[in-house]
Amino acid sequence: MPRKVDHKLRREAFLAAAYRTIKKKGLEGVTFRAVAREAGFTTGALVHYVDSIDKLLVESSEYAARYVRDDMEAMEALPDRLESLRQVIYLSLPLDEERRGNWNFWMGFWERSVRNATVRKLTHTRYGEWLGRLEHLIRMAQEAGDLADDIDVKRATKTCVALVDGIAAQTLRSGYPLSADEQRKIMDDWIVAALRPTRPLSAERIERPRRPRSNGSHPREAELAKAV
Amino acid sequence: MPRKVDHKLRREAFLAAAYRTIKKKGLEGVTFRAVAREAGFTTGALVHYVDSIDKLLVESSEYAARYVRDDMEAMEALPDRLESLRQVIYLSLPLDEERRGNWNFWMGFWERSVRNATVRKLTHTRYGEWLGRLEHLIRMAQEAGDLADDIDVKRATKTCVALVDGIAAQTLRSGYPLSADEQRKIMDDWIVAALRPTRPLSAERIERPRRPRSNGSHPREAELAKAV
Repeated sequence: MPRKVDHKLRREAFLAAAYRTIKKKGLEGVTFRAVAREAGFTTGALVHYVDSIDKLLVESSEYAARYVRDDMEAMEALPDRLESLRQVIYLSLPLDEERRGNWNFWMGFWERSVRNATVRKLTHTRYGEWLGRLEHLIRMAQEAGDLADDIDVKRATKTCVALVDGIAAQTLRSGYPLSADEQRKIMDDWIVAALRPTRPLSAERIERPRRPRSNGSHPREAELAKAV
Repeated sequence: MPRKVDHKLRREAFLAAAYRTIKKKGLEGVTFRAVAREAGFTTGALVHYVDSIDKLLVESSEYAARYVRDDMEAMEALPDRLESLRQVIYLSLPLDEERRGNWNFWMGFWERSVRNATVRKLTHTRYGEWLGRLEHLIRMAQEAGDLADDIDVKRATKTCVALVDGIAAQTLRSGYPLSADEQRKIMDDWIVAALRPTRPLSAERIERPRRPRSNGSHPREAELAKAV
């Protein structure tokens, strides 16, 4: 069924274009015209695939989430449970331009979720997923004997989520941005003080997994570019 | 000069109305019509005092800041420097409906600051003020011997600001709101783990200063209501 595959890939190409547009211009910059132009198609072609801006936001957010999730799952597979937790936290921080782009997306959702039920539902789903992922990682590290026995895992999870959100707000909105180094130090300090690891944090820097990517974009984008 | 005084008070009444409108409906709810109606005046009368929505946002934010500042200064005057810091942090949390209203204001500014230079400048000014206030309080508590000698005051300040912002985002936007009790516990845990006080936190609850207020509004509102 080559026709069907082609449709699926073209839809993905539009979502990738929407994602790039949001990273560059924020949520307010997402119009049919801007996204179609970014994808190199007519507005009509885009509307054929996604017929409302809300749907476009939701689907491109799912596209972005999939992408971040891939990276996180690679780090979750590390055998060192303490390092696994720490690296997933690092992946969630606005450390580089790409991740600041993701945060522009996310912070736009915070605001839009107030008056838009679809965006609100999606925001809540993502938070649920993120809280669940972190709680699992903290619990795994605790069970591996890497963290103090008596920490309140649920409260620690909520605190960690709050700290990451706040680092992003301060970095992107305050006029007093935190450097990548400061962001990591804040999280390391928190891990040490609040979770009380039973051994020191590794001094070695683990780079995030680098799969083949065209200019920092989604690994599948080269494939998509060929398909459309 | 009774005429002059009257103008000043009427302007304040409009700012109070804008503030109430934002707390109820968020930043997007602020229109000349909505604010004029809230104040019990015609749109024309409002436009006479403030001729753009941006100016109205900026001035009503200054009105709100003055109000929060009054409460914070009362807590800063506490002789116990550790409790003083802790109570100012509590005042910044979305613990009750009124403070969640303030946060609706503030989070709207985060988003609007991306595309509006006036709002951006104001947001940066407020962050500078808040970072400065907290740094001062942490330093004072440290100098009083209430906190560990070796904490990095600047980094602790940034962490505290991030944690408060993140608690607000989680409470107002995540679908998994933190109860007032959880919010206080998260901040207490952080104070204990990160600032390492030299004595236990007080178990006694200090209520925020209750000055005469009509239905939780600004203390001067009764006066304003009489004036217009």
